[in-house]
Amino acid sequence: MIAETRLTRCVAAAIRYNIDMARTSTTRKTTQRGLTTPRGFRAAAGTCGIKPSGHPDLALIVADKPCAAAGMFTTNKVVGAPVTISKRHIRSGTARAIICNSGVSNVCTGKQGIQDAIDMCRHTAAAVECEPGDVLVCSTGVIGPLLPMDKIRRGIPAVANRLARGSRADRAAARGILTTDLTPKTAYKGVRLGGLRAGASGKLVHIAGIAKGSGMIAPNMATMLAFITTDAAIAPALLKTALREATTASFNRISVDTDTSTSDSVLILASGEARNRKLAANSADYHKFVDALTEVCQSLAYQIIKDGEGATKVFRVEVRGARNIKDADLIGRAVVGSPLVKTAVHGSDPNWGRILAAAGRSGAHVNPDKACLTIGDQPVLEAGQPLVLNITQQRKLARIMKRREITFTLNLHIGKADADWLGCDLSKQYVTINADYTT
Amino acid sequence: MIAETRLTRCVAAAIRYNIDMARTSTTRKTTQRGLTTPRGFRAAAGTCGIKPSGHPDLALIVADKPCAAAGMFTTNKVVGAPVTISKRHIRSGTARAIICNSGVSNVCTGKQGIQDAIDMCRHTAAAVECEPGDVLVCSTGVIGPLLPMDKIRRGIPAVANRLARGSRADRAAARGILTTDLTPKTAYKGVRLGGLRAGASGKLVHIAGIAKGSGMIAPNMATMLAFITTDAAIAPALLKTALREATTASFNRISVDTDTSTSDSVLILASGEARNRKLAANSADYHKFVDALTEVCQSLAYQIIKDGEGATKVFRVEVRGARNIKDADLIGRAVVGSPLVKTAVHGSDPNWGRILAAAGRSGAHVNPDKACLTIGDQPVLEAGQPLVLNITQQRKLARIMKRREITFTLNLHIGKADADWLGCDLSKQYVTINADYTT
Repeated sequence: MIAETRLTRCVAAAIRYNIDMARTSTTRKTTQRGLTTPRGFRAAAGTCGIKPSGHPDLALIVADKPCAAAGMFTTNKVVGAPVTISKRHIRSGTARAIICNSGVSNVCTGKQGIQDAIDMCRHTAAAVECEPGDVLVCSTGVIGPLLPMDKIRRGIPAVANRLARGSRADRAAARGILTTDLTPKTAYKGVRLGGLRAGASGKLVHIAGIAKGSGMIAPNMATMLAFITTDAAIAPALLKTALREATTASFNRISVDTDTSTSDSVLILASGEARNRKLAANSADYHKFVDALTEVCQSLAYQIIKDGEGATKVFRVEVRGARNIKDADLIGRAVVGSPLVKTAVHGSDPNWGRILAAAGRSGAHVNPDKACLTIGDQPVLEAGQPLVLNITQQRKLARIMKRREITFTLNLHIGKADADWLGCDLSKQYVTINADYTT
Repeated sequence: MIAETRLTRCVAAAIRYNIDMARTSTTRKTTQRGLTTPRGFRAAAGTCGIKPSGHPDLALIVADKPCAAAGMFTTNKVVGAPVTISKRHIRSGTARAIICNSGVSNVCTGKQGIQDAIDMCRHTAAAVECEPGDVLVCSTGVIGPLLPMDKIRRGIPAVANRLARGSRADRAAARGILTTDLTPKTAYKGVRLGGLRAGASGKLVHIAGIAKGSGMIAPNMATMLAFITTDAAIAPALLKTALREATTASFNRISVDTDTSTSDSVLILASGEARNRKLAANSADYHKFVDALTEVCQSLAYQIIKDGEGATKVFRVEVRGARNIKDADLIGRAVVGSPLVKTAVHGSDPNWGRILAAAGRSGAHVNPDKACLTIGDQPVLEAGQPLVLNITQQRKLARIMKRREITFTLNLHIGKADADWLGCDLSKQYVTINADYTT
């Protein structure tokens, strides 16, 4: 709870930072810095022929030695076979490799699907010389069909042969996991933590991540696929705690279309090669690490929303003064998921009543007589009374609504809990993309 | 609970009946039978100038004498002033009149909004000669602006002067409450109940209703506006019970866009003029009355979905074998609300994995290894195993998906609870309608 409050407080700043980061470090700097910047990792991707488009469809991340590993997975009751197998393999707290195919999700595929996921781990283990239980597996794409295992079986050794460090390998892996995404999603953050010897200036710890996700995005306790590498020295149990904190304030506070996927998985591998003093729970260094990890996750989450299927605009919902954090999240989730809010954002329509209506139906405690709403920096509702805007203010509101990024600040004035959520608009393009995905 | 089970069992048949009813009795017969077919009611509508389009914007339903009255209202925490006032006035269990304007919803309008709703009742009471506390008031349209009370004050006596019985008045009232609806929604059902004297062949009781609703439709414990008249003799408390039963199996099982409105209200007035033996709780006559009332509500609910904003197709989700009724409703609600299911229906795309994914994220208990899914009469998933369809079956599935009305039957095989939900597809037209509603 303390951690949540701390994260909640820093979310607003962090998301703002993200927007800059997405524009600068993640797009410019990460052409140099990526998954293999943290020491001890190699990556590769290839095309084994799953996608009719001929785009890359197989990605591999391998650690030189066994790593501390943690994962967060979808809360959907219908989960893909790879989720079942990865959960099983990550239980030991260590892993060596992540294998991921795109194009077919291996969900609703019964016993054969489980066998296929196991086989993907087995073939990967053989190719990179580790135990099958040290391989984590993900699949993303259409639900229902069986994996084309012949192609994957031939593809895995070919991709393993291409494993390398450096920006070319990083970019390849980021592209190999995409489905309907228009752009690869990468993020990087360095943080200086205490070294092994006291008195030293500290060690630079690298955290880098890639993600995919564009539709079926309303993660809950995990998101679409995100793979994170770090060279921090940290025990598996604490790594899991750190990942949960970071995910709560990032992937779990976004929604493209309210549809939580069956395959959501966030995986992190920590090699320990930075040779920092091993992170202790609740230490200052741990908090610095969590903050940096949160920034990486928030940047990836932001990029997922920005690349949401058919999205032309991003909007942030700053929920303030809710009764508790659960209520703040209920409201944030309802507003960013509301088709009526999303279409209003799309049409630059300042129809703010829809935001109040979504908050009111969220299940959270709302007192309409206390609520205040600001769009950008233009107040529109104060203590439940709609403000009568003069022509200058109306024009200003119209300008704000036309922006590519819009912030709605809804202060309920009934408590102290805050949460920031990110959503995207609903466009005709979303309908086009999803009206005939399989046909 | 018993009532719920009973209703659930009859829903499938009733909804099927509805589809026919909507095509036949509601469109053909109700040109003769409407709100004023039940004895003791008059209706009227007019244009007082709220809508820029110049369409009718004021509707009035008046009973000759005080009536038993009951209502179901939105569960949204942000409610319009008319909801607050109507809830207050209906507490007595009797009412004489319903006044409703369309174009502006009088929601998020603070103290002035409450005063305006009170004034609407006051002016109506003066025009039809009753107490203001016997008037129920509804407003529907855009959220935020204040009502143009000058226009409404002048409009109410003008509409009251036009009060009449017969199909012309019925049609006018049905049109006067519309906003983005393309068609008026009316339903009628007659049922023979025991008369005052024993041994008689019974009395014909009439039930008629009108409704509006097209967007912001995901009712919960009530729906968009629906006004029902009946000449049944029934006490207010039992009328409320009957209305709750009927609403649960109709308006509460539909969704256009998951956005529960701030103004949802279902109101019923019972004049007692049919001179049936006053209905007793749990009597055979009571059950016949509830069944007929449910049919009327289901027909109106079906018409709302069919006229959903931008809708080109209706789909029914038959949830079978859920753990309990709450779970069955969670699953039905999630599937009909899923943007990915809705776009797949729009594109006639047999991407059934999205139905499983929506069920899995609904919060209900789902065992993917037991689930069976049938589209129309074509099974696609049995006990968690996807069926491999031959070319004939694939073509059949494609034909089913192209229909204007599609049924998905999802049997979870973990319990005995069933629920039927209605949804509509998500089209580009929905985005067009909602991207600039106020601008």
